[in-house]
Amino acid sequence: MNELCFTSATELVRRIRARELSAAEVLRAHVQQIERIDPAVNAMVTRTFEQAEAAARTIDERFARGEECGALAGLPVAHKDLAVTKGIRTTFGSPLFRDFVPDTDAIIVERLRAAGAVTVGKTNTPEFGAGSQTFNTVFGATRNPWNLERTCGGSSGGAAVALACGMVPIADGSDFGGSLRNPASFCNVVGFRPTPGRVPSWPTFNAWFSLPVVGPMARSVEDVALMLSAIAGPDRRCPISIHETGERFARPLARDMKGVRIAWSRDLDGLPIEREVLETLERALPAFADLGCVVEPATPDLTDADEIFEVLRAWNFDLSHGEWLRTKRSQLKQTVIWNIEEGQRLSGSQVARAERKRTELFARMGAFFERWDYLVCPVAQVLPFDVNTEYPMAIDDKPLANYIEWMRSCYRISATTLPAISVPAGFSHGGLPVGLQIVGRYLDDLGVLQVAHAFEQATRFGARRPAVAI
Amino acid sequence: MNELCFTSATELVRRIRARELSAAEVLRAHVQQIERIDPAVNAMVTRTFEQAEAAARTIDERFARGEECGALAGLPVAHKDLAVTKGIRTTFGSPLFRDFVPDTDAIIVERLRAAGAVTVGKTNTPEFGAGSQTFNTVFGATRNPWNLERTCGGSSGGAAVALACGMVPIADGSDFGGSLRNPASFCNVVGFRPTPGRVPSWPTFNAWFSLPVVGPMARSVEDVALMLSAIAGPDRRCPISIHETGERFARPLARDMKGVRIAWSRDLDGLPIEREVLETLERALPAFADLGCVVEPATPDLTDADEIFEVLRAWNFDLSHGEWLRTKRSQLKQTVIWNIEEGQRLSGSQVARAERKRTELFARMGAFFERWDYLVCPVAQVLPFDVNTEYPMAIDDKPLANYIEWMRSCYRISATTLPAISVPAGFSHGGLPVGLQIVGRYLDDLGVLQVAHAFEQATRFGARRPAVAI
Repeated sequence: MNELCFTSATELVRRIRARELSAAEVLRAHVQQIERIDPAVNAMVTRTFEQAEAAARTIDERFARGEECGALAGLPVAHKDLAVTKGIRTTFGSPLFRDFVPDTDAIIVERLRAAGAVTVGKTNTPEFGAGSQTFNTVFGATRNPWNLERTCGGSSGGAAVALACGMVPIADGSDFGGSLRNPASFCNVVGFRPTPGRVPSWPTFNAWFSLPVVGPMARSVEDVALMLSAIAGPDRRCPISIHETGERFARPLARDMKGVRIAWSRDLDGLPIEREVLETLERALPAFADLGCVVEPATPDLTDADEIFEVLRAWNFDLSHGEWLRTKRSQLKQTVIWNIEEGQRLSGSQVARAERKRTELFARMGAFFERWDYLVCPVAQVLPFDVNTEYPMAIDDKPLANYIEWMRSCYRISATTLPAISVPAGFSHGGLPVGLQIVGRYLDDLGVLQVAHAFEQATRFGARRPAVAI
Repeated sequence: MNELCFTSATELVRRIRARELSAAEVLRAHVQQIERIDPAVNAMVTRTFEQAEAAARTIDERFARGEECGALAGLPVAHKDLAVTKGIRTTFGSPLFRDFVPDTDAIIVERLRAAGAVTVGKTNTPEFGAGSQTFNTVFGATRNPWNLERTCGGSSGGAAVALACGMVPIADGSDFGGSLRNPASFCNVVGFRPTPGRVPSWPTFNAWFSLPVVGPMARSVEDVALMLSAIAGPDRRCPISIHETGERFARPLARDMKGVRIAWSRDLDGLPIEREVLETLERALPAFADLGCVVEPATPDLTDADEIFEVLRAWNFDLSHGEWLRTKRSQLKQTVIWNIEEGQRLSGSQVARAERKRTELFARMGAFFERWDYLVCPVAQVLPFDVNTEYPMAIDDKPLANYIEWMRSCYRISATTLPAISVPAGFSHGGLPVGLQIVGRYLDDLGVLQVAHAFEQATRFGARRPAVAI
């Protein structure tokens, strides 16, 4: 039974469609895995097994009648607890929403369901997604299956753990400052931050804002692409939607890598990176040369990226959560209060300056990508740390000023507004996963997936499973 | 010769391509018209006749060799003096840039040239495009050809006048708060504000900001669509580009109008509108019913639209021009100073509140357009006023607080981020043009053009020419 839980999504949908497997038995295998493994890791904080059973039976009946059921028909899926789900409790990781049951589905949820995926539950997230460490006062912390004393990262931490443990073959997540990439790196799965608008965000308080995105996670790049094919494409409710359908992601990802120009940036323009993170990545890096790529050290000019991100993040915290600070302050965690207050201290001119600098950074990245096809770099500056630590206070003895600064290796890329993926790239001597970040040109989501797929096929780190889940 | 100057762009390109006309003779006719008429109206403030002559000859030679020359091959075109033009003086209507010669073309200019259009010069605009009255200290005021004592509106005022006078068959413009629509209304031509990103804006200081757009102007909707087919489509330098090519606008615009649901809003949720503007529009309105449309009075809930627009405009003024206030204050006009200072007074929270309300307004408009297919309403709240008046201080005895408030009928629509066109809809008793504004769903640029085309074909007000240009 357990073997089904580590079968790829691509293979599962093929076998369900061919009626070699029923959606109901696939679901039961995953439900058992959740019941068996989740007590140790605490990833799947809300469960919808009864509804899932009914949905899986419906899929099987429809296949029996010869109907078409969608690209993800019969695949168990879990939604991040930041995504609103109609009739299913959605807490945003906040005690303010402990009992909140939305009356609408987020577009990403709606599309997963329309494609035949079967919702088995909601995955844990930090309060309002703030911070790349998945804990909150509603559900507690989610643990890293590779070492239960370590954090799984975040904010799509529950999703990454559920995938790593075979509880689901696909899961949605979201990423403002690294939340699809960091937990993927910490848990040895794949998280893809697409170009903003590739997967429409709705509902949102800030419809034209392109730093937060939603996107796919899975255990392989191929499965991420399959999921993306079902959730990408325009929607009138999201004015920044990209007007290309998802079909382009349904094709095989194989690509001739000969001559592809890869820039390797060890430190993303001066960031402290733990030695073992770099050593692990540098052991994996020759895979690109073996594939025929041209790999050279090169770093884009990321001047202002920190200011851009930190200002716009704080501004958006005030925009989205400022009201709670006035009315429910005692029920917010300190880091959320700090981030909202940072936003409330901003002048309009400071926000303007950040947007102006973002425009300049985008142009500089455009020039960088005339010389290079892809940028590869670390996802995270540190290995997964103690689950009881809220956030690292220093890296290599360099002190950090606040709860987000240790995530600059991700959020400098967010500030560029370019698509980026985290793909498994090896393990530390202590057995902790390390992800490689691959960044592409604006809109080149498909290229990023292709390069990540080639690297994954050449290295196969993603095939390893954590002992706790076996 | 003069007749060529009032031949449609569509017809001109057809005849040039068929070699019934040469691009050179079409150019010469328009150059003569500019030399003959412009002294009275002052629309074409920079002229590039020598370069144009060479470009037209090249087009003719290429056609003689049987080469394809683009959708606009041989059409004279003028660029708004806010669009940067490589090697051609670009003043932005500001004395600060009196002698500025850019080393790059705006994307809209680049595309017009690539499509074979022949640049004959730059059209006048208010200082930094601020205000719907076209005057500045570099070139003076542009006059309305229907009454030389009146304003032509703005900020794409020079473009509208050049079109109305047969100096060019197509012209580009831009629109933040109404600048493609207001001068079209005041001069009896067509100005189309497309969905943001339809025509990529570049260069810009604020790449993700969707209130300012660039777009096409012409004497007919068909010519606007022809021009749009050449300038629409994505570009990597503009991250909010819409990923549809321009081809969709090259097809005939005829459409069965039976049953199309039209909401007629006299006052856009409570605005003062001059009686004669309304009377003129209401004389034209039955054309929709005659076409088979369902027309009913209905107004969307535009609550907050003024705050959204006024805050985001001021914020963007600071973003774009704040530096000049510090260093060159004495060379800025008072209304620009006021608008930058309004921006500098804003807190980040006020900007956030405006963006949050814009998101809510966009959702309300989505709901409105479930019931209706198109919204029609006045373009301008007043008739063209005295060219020596900077801006109206009152409408129907209702006092106005600043230089932009009289433009709310346009900028409430800008705040919705929806596509909107101004199409000729008749004349006041004194012979001044009045435009009708047609607003469509997000991305329904083609539908807006089709409805405007049907209205234009049924009413034919656009065919009239101002006496001064004959």
